[in-house]
Amino acid sequence: MDKDEIVELIKDGSLDISKMKMLLSGMNTVDIAEVFEKLDKEQIIRMFRILPKVIASDVFAYVDTDQQQIIIEALTDTEIGEIINKLFVDDAVDFIEEMPANVVKRVLQNVPIAKRKIINQILQYPDDSAGSIMTTEYIDLREDAKVREAFDTIRTIGLNKETIYNCYVIRKDRLLVGGVSAKTLMLARPQDKIADIMDTNVVFANTTDDREKIAEQFHKYSLLAMPVVDKEQRLVGIITVDDIVDVIVEESTEDIEKMAALVPSDDPYLKTSIFQHAKNRFLWMLILMLSATITGTIISSFEEGLMVLPILMSFIPMLMNTGGIAGSQSSTLIVRGMAIGEIGLGDIILILWKELRVGILCGLGLGVVNFIRVFIMNNSDWKLCLTITLSLFCTILMAKTVGSVLPILAKRLRIDPAIMSAPLLTTIVDAVSLVIYFSIAKIILGL
Amino acid sequence: MDKDEIVELIKDGSLDISKMKMLLSGMNTVDIAEVFEKLDKEQIIRMFRILPKVIASDVFAYVDTDQQQIIIEALTDTEIGEIINKLFVDDAVDFIEEMPANVVKRVLQNVPIAKRKIINQILQYPDDSAGSIMTTEYIDLREDAKVREAFDTIRTIGLNKETIYNCYVIRKDRLLVGGVSAKTLMLARPQDKIADIMDTNVVFANTTDDREKIAEQFHKYSLLAMPVVDKEQRLVGIITVDDIVDVIVEESTEDIEKMAALVPSDDPYLKTSIFQHAKNRFLWMLILMLSATITGTIISSFEEGLMVLPILMSFIPMLMNTGGIAGSQSSTLIVRGMAIGEIGLGDIILILWKELRVGILCGLGLGVVNFIRVFIMNNSDWKLCLTITLSLFCTILMAKTVGSVLPILAKRLRIDPAIMSAPLLTTIVDAVSLVIYFSIAKIILGL
Repeated sequence: MDKDEIVELIKDGSLDISKMKMLLSGMNTVDIAEVFEKLDKEQIIRMFRILPKVIASDVFAYVDTDQQQIIIEALTDTEIGEIINKLFVDDAVDFIEEMPANVVKRVLQNVPIAKRKIINQILQYPDDSAGSIMTTEYIDLREDAKVREAFDTIRTIGLNKETIYNCYVIRKDRLLVGGVSAKTLMLARPQDKIADIMDTNVVFANTTDDREKIAEQFHKYSLLAMPVVDKEQRLVGIITVDDIVDVIVEESTEDIEKMAALVPSDDPYLKTSIFQHAKNRFLWMLILMLSATITGTIISSFEEGLMVLPILMSFIPMLMNTGGIAGSQSSTLIVRGMAIGEIGLGDIILILWKELRVGILCGLGLGVVNFIRVFIMNNSDWKLCLTITLSLFCTILMAKTVGSVLPILAKRLRIDPAIMSAPLLTTIVDAVSLVIYFSIAKIILGL
Repeated sequence: MDKDEIVELIKDGSLDISKMKMLLSGMNTVDIAEVFEKLDKEQIIRMFRILPKVIASDVFAYVDTDQQQIIIEALTDTEIGEIINKLFVDDAVDFIEEMPANVVKRVLQNVPIAKRKIINQILQYPDDSAGSIMTTEYIDLREDAKVREAFDTIRTIGLNKETIYNCYVIRKDRLLVGGVSAKTLMLARPQDKIADIMDTNVVFANTTDDREKIAEQFHKYSLLAMPVVDKEQRLVGIITVDDIVDVIVEESTEDIEKMAALVPSDDPYLKTSIFQHAKNRFLWMLILMLSATITGTIISSFEEGLMVLPILMSFIPMLMNTGGIAGSQSSTLIVRGMAIGEIGLGDIILILWKELRVGILCGLGLGVVNFIRVFIMNNSDWKLCLTITLSLFCTILMAKTVGSVLPILAKRLRIDPAIMSAPLLTTIVDAVSLVIYFSIAKIILGL
């Protein structure tokens, strides 16, 4: 049965509670959450109460913020306490971060004090830090324990841990000394000592590390989980790969939005209000519009020349567009290359040298096509052809250079390279290409 | 000791072989691979021979294609057979796909026949399909087996499997009937039957499914692995989350490159030749350059009007740029929203309605600023101000509409939306904004 059919069944109320319960318990919790998104307030509350207790908190973790709020507001204090206590800490924190203050207060009041303390602590880590995405439901083992005891530990507490496949080994003072995978444990003998089979070469994060850097490590080392330590190197949490997949998708979206001159936003397109949409777009549009005053001034300053040979006007968009795309191609490659760690700050000379040659190749190719086109369309006026073609060639070379250097400079100055790539690049390339064009026109055509 | 120091030690040859061996065996194989990338041909071959056998094939899987070729060409037939046989099938396939024909031939000749058959089969799946990224080293269990037996199986064959954390349950005819995680196994009793504890609701893929769709499923359901079945629903392989992380990063890069009017490429920026770079960029630059003939013609057709009021020329870049950014903001949001599954084809009316209102908000805001700026800078010529401002407003509205509709239409026509967003959008928005501008100028200014 597909989700829409289930939504229909709920809406027309034709199934009794016990049948509905059976139907839901056979479903994946993610799919149940999707069904919830299509229900109205009353139906959500009714369906949530029907859910078997063991999956209720799972479903709660997966539904959207709006539905979470609807559910929480309909629950009693005790029920809230139960649900939140069953959530993994990272999911609880994600939920609390999105709720209005009064809901947060009520939630925290009803959570057991130990959990509340941990939640409060994680809430204090800066956004985008390892601390803010970690969870505290991990399995830690002592280095002097035996494999047999490790299995006992996993069987006793494993059900409520985010992962049991990566266990971390600590000393008495909670100092992280190694890691041991469930695979290693399963292939070891029961009497082996953890210290003898553990991997002491564990890739770990500090609570303040940037989540993008951590995602890079997961990618590079093909990790399933990573331990997080505090300043004193004590184990305080773990990050699991499912959250890293979210991070990678979100960070890519952010970069894409920044490159398109948008203020990045975590909210889905359709759920963002038109005012928020307008706000996210207005600033960069304004900056670009105002910076076009520069190009306007340059054109005005060459007005006399354009009056003598009005045909020159008609090539301005072609030059600006081709230059714009040449520049954005380069900057996009560099920005993305830096984002996924393929390009470093030290590669600037290599890149410049490469872009210069690529620019010459592209410029030559386009120059030839352009010369022929202008020659045919403009009564074999070879001086005009030369002016346009030479301007095009220089513009492409300039755009490729600026487009590749700008993101690297931005990164050196600790500005986000993705932001530089769209608006600033466009302004520079537009202005300089006009200056190139008019200078060459003055020389060759004597205007 | 960091990687550069190790590279130094290798280059100056100050460490004897046994010390070098010890140093390397303490390192993560990914880091060893990184060290290899900084060595020359002779050093690579020498170091690879020093590597402990157990990690040699791991390191081989992680080094770049160039180094893989150097190593393979230096090995004897027997050594090649050993290395490739130890690789997971997906890594072996990745490697073989990048090698020249003569190397491929030699490699396949020296691989045991069973493995060769599997490799050849996977090589036949289309690029970007589930079949092409799956591996065949998985653990399958029979539904009538006991948990105790499952553990025996894992202990016996688990070491050579890509993951032991997700096992899949098959019937006699290899039909996939369920999945069971190592967690479930560890928390079950030894005498439990697999059929009683397995999850029959497994998310699986077909060999021909698109890898992007599979990545979406991994993201949605927080999966660590996914079984792959053939047309007859028989289990033929699994996909693991580490490969999906690669897919997500690669697909995002591809989308970003397409949006920037680049032909996407898997090769790292610095390792791509300038001819390949030029090739990846030339086509779209050419298309944009030629399509600018349209804007050129529109400008020429309004030449007389521009001669009467030359100041009108200076606003052309501002209108085109602001329109361009307005359009690309919308198309980027829609393309990305569709890529991560937030937006569907059915949302077109919702989106149009949203974009129209966002366009009005942005257009009003920018219009006011623009009116004031033009009024001050152009001697209070209110007719000119009105012309520019009205054109700007209409251009923004038009750009937002075209920018949001174009990607959805593309998807309907089964064209990649990311490709439409840059070049076609720019051409349309540029041309239409000029037509708008000149039409309004004719009416208000009577040109």
